[in-house]
Amino acid sequence: MTRIKFHQNLDDLKEKLLVMAGMAEQAIQRAIEAYRVRDLSICELVLRSEPSINRLEREIDQMALDLLAMEQPMAIDLRFILSVIRINADLERVGDQAVNIAVRVREMEAFANIELPVDIPRLAELAAAMVRKALQAFIEADAEMAETVLTMDDQVDQMNEAAFYALSSLIKEKPELTPQALNALIIARNLERVGDHATNIAEDVIFWVRGADVRHHQGAEI
Amino acid sequence: MTRIKFHQNLDDLKEKLLVMAGMAEQAIQRAIEAYRVRDLSICELVLRSEPSINRLEREIDQMALDLLAMEQPMAIDLRFILSVIRINADLERVGDQAVNIAVRVREMEAFANIELPVDIPRLAELAAAMVRKALQAFIEADAEMAETVLTMDDQVDQMNEAAFYALSSLIKEKPELTPQALNALIIARNLERVGDHATNIAEDVIFWVRGADVRHHQGAEI
Repeated sequence: MTRIKFHQNLDDLKEKLLVMAGMAEQAIQRAIEAYRVRDLSICELVLRSEPSINRLEREIDQMALDLLAMEQPMAIDLRFILSVIRINADLERVGDQAVNIAVRVREMEAFANIELPVDIPRLAELAAAMVRKALQAFIEADAEMAETVLTMDDQVDQMNEAAFYALSSLIKEKPELTPQALNALIIARNLERVGDHATNIAEDVIFWVRGADVRHHQGAEI
Repeated sequence: MTRIKFHQNLDDLKEKLLVMAGMAEQAIQRAIEAYRVRDLSICELVLRSEPSINRLEREIDQMALDLLAMEQPMAIDLRFILSVIRINADLERVGDQAVNIAVRVREMEAFANIELPVDIPRLAELAAAMVRKALQAFIEADAEMAETVLTMDDQVDQMNEAAFYALSSLIKEKPELTPQALNALIIARNLERVGDHATNIAEDVIFWVRGADVRHHQGAEI
């Protein structure tokens, strides 16, 4: 394989990863739309998109492996390919969280739609924005932009912690609302995990661009 | 680097990964011991071991990257190195779950120790056994043994689902027990995630040994 051909293959790999990212983002957005308007047909869309996301994950991994096997990539290309492998896994797990949320929304269907002391759509918007920003940093090879994602993660963690205590109090005061409150609590945690995956992606971008390892800035989650 | 030296380096990499595995397992076992006997000093041990686990993760990644960069490994060696990179990440996340559990146990200190309708130590034993078995499959390059881990995961998921409903009912009947029940619910979910990481490790072993990709057998979690 020539160098030119090799770099063309790297570009193909990057493009495929962006398709993967688009699918994962769409899954999360649909899951939250399903939550917002309580629409089971949107839940179905999310559940049905999972096999395609999984298939694409395997394709991308195979492409990356083939590139690693065929060439002796230079340090920066090697880091790029490894970053793609890791980001790919995180995107697939973002898709899993969308599925988890869709399953919760379906469960909630059996219960009255009530006002809850947690702004799930806002939390979702923030988590989705983290994924978008991490991917943008990846596209532009911009380590500084990736760093802003790490700050956003602290905000998501705080919102999630506040949700936990607000929902605990609600359950204590109005135990009849337990199912709805527990479902919201778990959806909030699913969104926190989306934020964690975005953080992983941002750290991979920094690793790729700078060759430095910035993992483990995060505190524990609740 | 000679072939012999290269294979010696692969052995060193494997050995280091087993040290990492031992630390992650110990962290989970300590966190559950802290839960069982409500001992905050054990929680502290878990929290204090996290930086060492994170440091070791970076060291292993660096060793793996160096091996990828220096050699043009054959297909099976390439798959081995990539498996180590993935397993390493999963072990680090097992350590994170231990930290999450320790933080929950610390929170529970403020509340009375009550009997709950969920056998956390049993769930923990099963999740820890999954990690152990996945690692044993890795040591022995035994894909069949790795497959048994996938079956154990279904059991963990079922126990976790049962815990979710039992604790929801408890909260509804006795809202004054909400804090303890919620904490147990989240610890059960942390243990389920430990099981998921063990599953990932088992899948990586199968991928390394057989060259086949067996991911995505799992259903959605609650």
